[in-house]
Amino acid sequence: MIVIMGHGAPREQLDAVVERVRAVGLQAHLIEGEERTIVGVVGTPLPPSLQENLEILPGVVEVVRVSTKFKLTGWDFHPTKTIITINPKDAPAGTPPVVIGGEQIVLMAGPCSVESEEQLLTSARAVKAAGATLLRGGAYKPRTSPYEFRGLGERGLQILAQAREETGLAIITEVMTPADVELVGRYTDVFQIGARNSQNYLLLEEVGKAGKPVMLKRGLSMLIEEWILAAEYVMAQGNPDVMLCERGIRTYETATRNTLDVSAVPVVQKLSHLPVLIDPSHAAGKRAFVGALSLAGIAAGADGLMIEAHPSPDHALSDGAQSLSLSEFAELTPRIAAVAAAVGKSLPI
Amino acid sequence: MIVIMGHGAPREQLDAVVERVRAVGLQAHLIEGEERTIVGVVGTPLPPSLQENLEILPGVVEVVRVSTKFKLTGWDFHPTKTIITINPKDAPAGTPPVVIGGEQIVLMAGPCSVESEEQLLTSARAVKAAGATLLRGGAYKPRTSPYEFRGLGERGLQILAQAREETGLAIITEVMTPADVELVGRYTDVFQIGARNSQNYLLLEEVGKAGKPVMLKRGLSMLIEEWILAAEYVMAQGNPDVMLCERGIRTYETATRNTLDVSAVPVVQKLSHLPVLIDPSHAAGKRAFVGALSLAGIAAGADGLMIEAHPSPDHALSDGAQSLSLSEFAELTPRIAAVAAAVGKSLPI
Amino acid sequence: MIVIMGHGAPREQLDAVVERVRAVGLQAHLIEGEERTIVGVVGTPLPPSLQENLEILPGVVEVVRVSTKFKLTGWDFHPTKTIITINPKDAPAGTPPVVIGGEQIVLMAGPCSVESEEQLLTSARAVKAAGATLLRGGAYKPRTSPYEFRGLGERGLQILAQAREETGLAIITEVMTPADVELVGRYTDVFQIGARNSQNYLLLEEVGKAGKPVMLKRGLSMLIEEWILAAEYVMAQGNPDVMLCERGIRTYETATRNTLDVSAVPVVQKLSHLPVLIDPSHAAGKRAFVGALSLAGIAAGADGLMIEAHPSPDHALSDGAQSLSLSEFAELTPRIAAVAAAVGKSLPI
Amino acid sequence: MIVIMGHGAPREQLDAVVERVRAVGLQAHLIEGEERTIVGVVGTPLPPSLQENLEILPGVVEVVRVSTKFKLTGWDFHPTKTIITINPKDAPAGTPPVVIGGEQIVLMAGPCSVESEEQLLTSARAVKAAGATLLRGGAYKPRTSPYEFRGLGERGLQILAQAREETGLAIITEVMTPADVELVGRYTDVFQIGARNSQNYLLLEEVGKAGKPVMLKRGLSMLIEEWILAAEYVMAQGNPDVMLCERGIRTYETATRNTLDVSAVPVVQKLSHLPVLIDPSHAAGKRAFVGALSLAGIAAGADGLMIEAHPSPDHALSDGAQSLSLSEFAELTPRIAAVAAAVGKSLPI
Repeated sequence: MIVIMGHGAPREQLDAVVERVRAVGLQAHLIEGEERTIVGVVGTPLPPSLQENLEILPGVVEVVRVSTKFKLTGWDFHPTKTIITINPKDAPAGTPPVVIGGEQIVLMAGPCSVESEEQLLTSARAVKAAGATLLRGGAYKPRTSPYEFRGLGERGLQILAQAREETGLAIITEVMTPADVELVGRYTDVFQIGARNSQNYLLLEEVGKAGKPVMLKRGLSMLIEEWILAAEYVMAQGNPDVMLCERGIRTYETATRNTLDVSAVPVVQKLSHLPVLIDPSHAAGKRAFVGALSLAGIAAGADGLMIEAHPSPDHALSDGAQSLSLSEFAELTPRIAAVAAAVGKSLPI
Repeated sequence: MIVIMGHGAPREQLDAVVERVRAVGLQAHLIEGEERTIVGVVGTPLPPSLQENLEILPGVVEVVRVSTKFKLTGWDFHPTKTIITINPKDAPAGTPPVVIGGEQIVLMAGPCSVESEEQLLTSARAVKAAGATLLRGGAYKPRTSPYEFRGLGERGLQILAQAREETGLAIITEVMTPADVELVGRYTDVFQIGARNSQNYLLLEEVGKAGKPVMLKRGLSMLIEEWILAAEYVMAQGNPDVMLCERGIRTYETATRNTLDVSAVPVVQKLSHLPVLIDPSHAAGKRAFVGALSLAGIAAGADGLMIEAHPSPDHALSDGAQSLSLSEFAELTPRIAAVAAAVGKSLPI
Repeated sequence: MIVIMGHGAPREQLDAVVERVRAVGLQAHLIEGEERTIVGVVGTPLPPSLQENLEILPGVVEVVRVSTKFKLTGWDFHPTKTIITINPKDAPAGTPPVVIGGEQIVLMAGPCSVESEEQLLTSARAVKAAGATLLRGGAYKPRTSPYEFRGLGERGLQILAQAREETGLAIITEVMTPADVELVGRYTDVFQIGARNSQNYLLLEEVGKAGKPVMLKRGLSMLIEEWILAAEYVMAQGNPDVMLCERGIRTYETATRNTLDVSAVPVVQKLSHLPVLIDPSHAAGKRAFVGALSLAGIAAGADGLMIEAHPSPDHALSDGAQSLSLSEFAELTPRIAAVAAAVGKSLPI
Repeated sequence: MIVIMGHGAPREQLDAVVERVRAVGLQAHLIEGEERTIVGVVGTPLPPSLQENLEILPGVVEVVRVSTKFKLTGWDFHPTKTIITINPKDAPAGTPPVVIGGEQIVLMAGPCSVESEEQLLTSARAVKAAGATLLRGGAYKPRTSPYEFRGLGERGLQILAQAREETGLAIITEVMTPADVELVGRYTDVFQIGARNSQNYLLLEEVGKAGKPVMLKRGLSMLIEEWILAAEYVMAQGNPDVMLCERGIRTYETATRNTLDVSAVPVVQKLSHLPVLIDPSHAAGKRAFVGALSLAGIAAGADGLMIEAHPSPDHALSDGAQSLSLSEFAELTPRIAAVAAAVGKSLPI
């Protein structure tokens, strides 16, 4: 930690900083420049509130953190990339595991919400045929207004499990509250934490304890640093199988529902060993742009994509505007495979 | 609802829109302009997903919603301003009720976190003496990193209740998860929903059922419309006592921790009958700016302020950098009272 | 300047940093912590590109600037607040000077565009009667689309001068390009640099040479630091009379045209000695909110306000939606005066 | 244009709207819904200020524009994609033209600033060998602080021309002010308008008259709609050869210098027939991310890339942190070519 003193800060202000640093058992090193003096703080551990406490001492202009905030999620103490292996529960014999974070990219696809057995099974068969290995579908839906469709609940989970039994696709579905983790965990292969719950820390800890892979969507206005710290919450409970999913951030631009921050892919890869995926559907909010964003995500190095596809988007109960039809999805996957090949990856066959 | 067709959209695309509208029992009125044709949709109720379903029909450029999304929170069906009256539980005999939304502004003050009996009681006495009528203090703290101080839990709630018994101040404290609502409700007078939980809909519904006033902080990147819809979740459970609290939004500017959107005060007042407050402490993130933002909020018409004040900010376990000292708070309140008077309001005595 | 090395950066990377620092005649001080090593750079002058050049050396995680970027605009070398005195050119005998930055706040008011002699003179008389001391009015208008009204040009300047001769109000009007500075300067008392030209550096230098006060509007996505550096461009040409005007920044919120960053007032006051004003009209974009934002700005400590007022807003050729009528302006100024008094200031009489 | 009236707006407010519409020679069609009444405005031309003037009439909730704002830049009246052909001036005999907007993607590369003959010629030879067909290099540099390096001016232009004569690369360089257009136009093949000048309308018109291709960078907080309208300024002067360049927008995220809005590629392609390019260097601000963003841009469908490359980035006078070295650029281009092939395009040989 480095403390930067204001121009002309008097000696006693400097002394107060040094004293405060020493009071918590750390050392203070002074560097006196022509314009400013700085104090280097050396030693461990740093009390979590020390930065704030120093910032408000008289004469202090700024306190800069030097050490990393990432323990379990960062490269410093985990120098190899995380690879997550999923064995879909109750899948037909011979179903291969789904591997995320390796040389193959994964496609997660399916409707926004589970609406009926027929809707989901039709979707599952089609997205599998087109190259997906995970099936998405919401049984519990967070909605901005209380008067909108909020999902089928456990019945939706049962339909998902039925689709898995038939197709062998692994299941990913959202859990919205700690009390539901046990129930959702009885069905799903991967817990999805949605953007609105990205800093619901008690939920993060609960899925951290549940012993299944977790996918963390990025919050609408979450810094990449905060997003990785959210993953730290899950990992701190002993769960190493966390992946991140960029789904667009909120900016001033309104031509798209959100702004896909495609740079998040290389930034996450620099800061963390966790796999990172792209959700072009929520980012775009309009299906006309989903294809271009899918290809951009893979070209940028993402480990996979989560794409909304629905048998009849114009009758969907939620997110119809951003869903591909099943045939549009089938036309897109060869293009994804081509870009994947161009960056040295492949789709599982 | 209005459907805008693209320039030169052929007749069959227009027909498909009209047909879809009629299929759900509504009427379609056409207006053919020189450049574009629009379709006015008339009738009720509008199926919630109709807008999205129309948006993706071929030839449709845009669908504009005409009717309001606000039922319980809007002025249309509730033409008088909401006034919330709080009788602090177990307060000394003769303690007057706290009224929010009337001609008097309210001050909520206290430390970010409850750290100890001494810290909280000292704070409570001081903020009361300076003009506050509600005591804030977190017993459960959401923190960006799992390695930071996260509150005293129920012990914190007990200390808050103790301060209320002594001072008569009403209590406001945060609840983070549905499972805690019952416990927190046993102590608090007002539930606070924090910015990170502003779209935690199950939590909103749970406090909606709990029969006590609720203060909803605005999420970091929440549209004002979404914020009011979050209040709609609480009110839809039968709880009319909801107030909103602007605490800064996330923008590109880094000179302050967040950007106080002071315009939110008149905007909310135009859209909703609910009281609206300002939290200058979280908005600024630096105590040097808290005074100016407090005065700005009151001048803009806010119904009150929530301000962090701590006996010793430079030793605080959380948010020290943005906390006023108790004497700074005492110096600020007469200035707040002066601005309140200038806009025709007052502080309770 | 401080260079932060990555965890485990090898000796030769550290040596390369030290060598690069010494190569430009500066000294390097090492502080070796448990997790990281930092290098303090001491000496002057710092070559402007040194920071970037160090940032890309192998092993370097971050480079933090310690010294201030503000020379003429900052407090370090100019410890008293700037007060700007304007003597309106060709004003009636006995017209008092307009003083900006002192104990009195100033009101600048008038229409968005100068549209006709009658429109401007009517406005001038009314805003003067209501307490304004500067008259605003655009003769050259930047417009998002090339097909919109773009101002009367020099004829507009002549009408402004005519209004000044009659009323004694000082004039402020926008100049959009370096080639126009001479012409506009023949008429105006204060040059206005608009938000879209806030980083038009050649224009900033040209008005810096013109020897008249300059008001710099903040760009839509300008950091406060960049805004003050824009003022540095003007001052570096020998012009000390610069004032800043916050007019709303662009954020994700769409309920207002822009988001008024009222915190900019205390932040600027902490970083710079220059006066700072608020333009509530462009910030709100809707006249219903102009009053609340005016009061908030004064309460936050602004040195003045720039408000759009028009004899007939619903017939204005530009910005009608955000203009007050002249009677609305007259009703607002006593409320502004009341808040000014509450914060220890006054309106000139 | 559609006017939406408030719930329960009385008859006389509706009449006032209708009257105002008719007063400018247009027709008003009413649709009376259960909750609200709307007024469809039919006829042409729409007076530019009509929308604002209607918005402030009593009882009006919202006015929605129906017709497109894009005349020359939109698809409605120009149904084929724009292809720009550049014949580098004074290039060696046999130099093929550079074509932008066709099946081949173009690479523009070179240093941020022209610093010396040796630096630029070394760069030019290397980027040509690696596949670039345009050479970038700034002779006039906009800088945030007045104390930074601002370019070599005309000497820089001469060096660019010299590099073109030797290599046959077309030249693209920035022009900052209308007065420089004639001079810069004597040397350059393509005018670059920088992000800070993206709404400098007089400059846009001046390059519109100059008869050479223009590349418009997107402003830091420019809506895509505003960006296309800026192109409309250039085209309205008779210049059809305009291309757009996305270079990152300003958001709350600080891990990258700006946030690349890769969605801008398909959005622009939907709204306009103009070519669109990506500048990954300014978007990322750090060279570690330039490769990933280059590939993402091509995969999303961009017509080309502008990349900063410098013989010795750690000695660059500007933007060193985001510049690739010449060998890094040479390693990147085959990867770009591979992704281009995957999306059905190619690099010129």
